[in-house]
Amino acid sequence: MTFSERLSAAVRAADSCLCIGIDPWLDRLPGRADSTDTVALVAAFARAVVLAAEGQVPAVKPQFAFFEQLGPPGMAVLADTCKLARERGLVVIGDAKRGDIGSTASAYASATLSPGAPFPCDALTVSPFLGPDTLDPFLEAADRHQRGLFVLLRTSNPGSHRWQGAIRDDIAGWIEAENQRRGPGLGPVGAVVGATKRDDLQSLRDQMPGTWFLVPGFGAQGASAADARAALRPDGLGALVASARGATFPSAPDADYDADPQRWIRSRIAVVKAEIRD
Amino acid sequence: MTFSERLSAAVRAADSCLCIGIDPWLDRLPGRADSTDTVALVAAFARAVVLAAEGQVPAVKPQFAFFEQLGPPGMAVLADTCKLARERGLVVIGDAKRGDIGSTASAYASATLSPGAPFPCDALTVSPFLGPDTLDPFLEAADRHQRGLFVLLRTSNPGSHRWQGAIRDDIAGWIEAENQRRGPGLGPVGAVVGATKRDDLQSLRDQMPGTWFLVPGFGAQGASAADARAALRPDGLGALVASARGATFPSAPDADYDADPQRWIRSRIAVVKAEIRD
Repeated sequence: MTFSERLSAAVRAADSCLCIGIDPWLDRLPGRADSTDTVALVAAFARAVVLAAEGQVPAVKPQFAFFEQLGPPGMAVLADTCKLARERGLVVIGDAKRGDIGSTASAYASATLSPGAPFPCDALTVSPFLGPDTLDPFLEAADRHQRGLFVLLRTSNPGSHRWQGAIRDDIAGWIEAENQRRGPGLGPVGAVVGATKRDDLQSLRDQMPGTWFLVPGFGAQGASAADARAALRPDGLGALVASARGATFPSAPDADYDADPQRWIRSRIAVVKAEIRD
Repeated sequence: MTFSERLSAAVRAADSCLCIGIDPWLDRLPGRADSTDTVALVAAFARAVVLAAEGQVPAVKPQFAFFEQLGPPGMAVLADTCKLARERGLVVIGDAKRGDIGSTASAYASATLSPGAPFPCDALTVSPFLGPDTLDPFLEAADRHQRGLFVLLRTSNPGSHRWQGAIRDDIAGWIEAENQRRGPGLGPVGAVVGATKRDDLQSLRDQMPGTWFLVPGFGAQGASAADARAALRPDGLGALVASARGATFPSAPDADYDADPQRWIRSRIAVVKAEIRD
């Protein structure tokens, strides 16, 4: 089964395009008042998110930076989180935004997209900035192992247009062409397109019918559910809408959250899932 | 002492602008015929490079990807390598090409540029693609802790012009302005500029008198010593020329290398150092 087929099946099975971000912000971890073992708190939080997401959504998206800042023990938690999520049937999108040349890009791909990868992901976010030749090692790994990529195209931050604007359409054309030449339907080379600029999202959706979008920006970053839904194709496929803060943290201290994070997150996921559908 | 002052002092003390890349290619590790413990082989190689570089060159540049592909144990070797190199007085440039928004960028900066960083670096390579606002967390960490950045500007790979070309001058102007507003002389916000297109390197050098360049592309990637020297200011400062393959691996199996890698690398570093100077 190709990456796109697996992702389509997961979206249909969950009846949702919601992708839950696993962003362990250290100042929001449940239980932080009772323990100073940050690595253990992160491990418990990441596990709670995966188990809360299981069966409810198609995908989770661990954010590598939050694990990396805790050093090798944090990276061990990341490895365990990726493995657990895949075991539980979730599509795992490694949000690492990697990009480098030749052999170095191959090493990043090996770390995440190979069968024996220490941080096993179904797809990886990558940066196109170094040039199309630097994406080839990632594409080769994705093709060989039936994995996917999400290429940064139009990010959700306020300053994204400054340097992305001038080259966006050329990168978009390159991505769509890579999908087209792999056959009809949605391909393995996705794009990260924020929901915060809805006009851009809509026009890219029209230009890129064969491309999965990974859509950040919904909720805490200001985009509405309707903005995010502009990423979907008429068949309800073609987009994963990411939510981390809105689905996994309370906005103010909450005793229920600390008492049973997995249950709290599971309820919140149900709420966010309904928001995106309606 | 600022990052730029430390780097200038290191260049003068070593009488060299050579930066030794620590790129543990798994198929080139010394001793690989006698051991299958890849993590131990990488650790021994990285240690040999650091000890061979000590006192000969100003800086080393560990390439994060090659450690990440070995999982958490590989990341532990990376952490040890960064620590050992700093203890031995080398300026450590973490070649991670990180880039992300807001809190995620802060987490990457915390992993590398903070006083308690698990992977302690004096400077970090970062990607500008997401926009200038996404570089702010890295700049804040660099300013607070007297560290440096090297922003990808014109990379050494064949396809770098495709997407960097249209935005290169605006990014260059932004980098130089960040240095100018921090005072006269060379600032903490460096740029990665490959030696493989000498005309570009020369024109960027002229446009960016206050910016340190990190210059890949010399040797194995095809640029000559004269190409790389175009990155230097008339005072002999302002550039670090990177060499990994040429300084740390033999091009064919070599018994002397396997017998005493540190000694072999030390001799090679002396040769490459002389090539760049002449």
